[in-house]
Amino acid sequence: MAEPLAFWFEFASPYSYLSAMRIQTMAREAGVALVLRPILLGPIFAAQGWNDSPFKLYPAKGVYLWQDMAREAAAAGLAFQKPSSFPRGSLLAARIVTANAHEPWAMDFTRAVFRANFAEDRAVERPEVIAELLNTLGLEAQALVQQAAEPAVKDALRAQTEAAQARGLFGAPSFTVGDTLFWGNDRLERALECAKTFG
Amino acid sequence: MAEPLAFWFEFASPYSYLSAMRIQTMAREAGVALVLRPILLGPIFAAQGWNDSPFKLYPAKGVYLWQDMAREAAAAGLAFQKPSSFPRGSLLAARIVTANAHEPWAMDFTRAVFRANFAEDRAVERPEVIAELLNTLGLEAQALVQQAAEPAVKDALRAQTEAAQARGLFGAPSFTVGDTLFWGNDRLERALECAKTFG
Repeated sequence: MAEPLAFWFEFASPYSYLSAMRIQTMAREAGVALVLRPILLGPIFAAQGWNDSPFKLYPAKGVYLWQDMAREAAAAGLAFQKPSSFPRGSLLAARIVTANAHEPWAMDFTRAVFRANFAEDRAVERPEVIAELLNTLGLEAQALVQQAAEPAVKDALRAQTEAAQARGLFGAPSFTVGDTLFWGNDRLERALECAKTFG
Repeated sequence: MAEPLAFWFEFASPYSYLSAMRIQTMAREAGVALVLRPILLGPIFAAQGWNDSPFKLYPAKGVYLWQDMAREAAAAGLAFQKPSSFPRGSLLAARIVTANAHEPWAMDFTRAVFRANFAEDRAVERPEVIAELLNTLGLEAQALVQQAAEPAVKDALRAQTEAAQARGLFGAPSFTVGDTLFWGNDRLERALECAKTFG
């Protein structure tokens, strides 16, 4: 009996883009249910004493990141462009997915936001850009953007980020199968295998 | 025409163990020359503001490390034990390999040290443990331990660590092919492919 695979991601995270573009197909082929868990890395990094992305705090790591991303995206057949602004605000997109994680379109929207940020260099922190992505998917953009501003939705995203920390998450993407944690796009195969053979 | 693959490693680094145990066979099969470049992560981490291993400075990362290592070692068919002391001093072993990187036994000794640290929980910072590993390989332990204390050897290891930083290295294991940098055991395949198809 397969166990669900939870996908913990941050819309500003480059390696989360690599996972977001392939996880749904892979989970479907493995017969594993996928649960979307957007989080904010800001509070998680702050708890580690970082007031910014580690890719900015540690310049050598930052230089390497974009070289590695270009290679990994190319190997995966994905379009990629280094965003002209990094990290881009992910609050609105994360709230929309939090409020609608079980909707059939949630993964389509998630991919659209990642693609806009990392392949098209679009300002996904802006409500009008998010609204356009929602409209393109045939969704009620205005209603969804309004819903995202509800206190219950804000609280839910905050709680999900706290739940991530409580589970020992320290970066994104991460994957959990039951209590077992996997970190990084490089561990997606391992996490799926664990979900398939769980218990 | 294949380009040499340089392997930058730190004897205290868990993921360097995973690479050390497989890199020689893989390079040989790919027809790629292998160059051993031991370094000390201490000064490299210090330049990033860290006075200890990031796995100790960031506890969540440290907890995850040992879970991930156990899984990755098992998947690679490698014996693994969490060292009772971490990170273990690597100065003597690193100096011996620096002074003898081109000797045919250098990779055998490298593997023996990593195995002692991460599979047998032995105190590889102690000269008598290193001497025993050298003796087991049929080498002149006393002469090699003495050579490691020569100022020229100490300088060479220091220079190699500085060269690593100048190339943008920020962690271990790393691999370089020409000026192209790859970081982490998860990138060894990519680095080898780059070396094979270089130029």
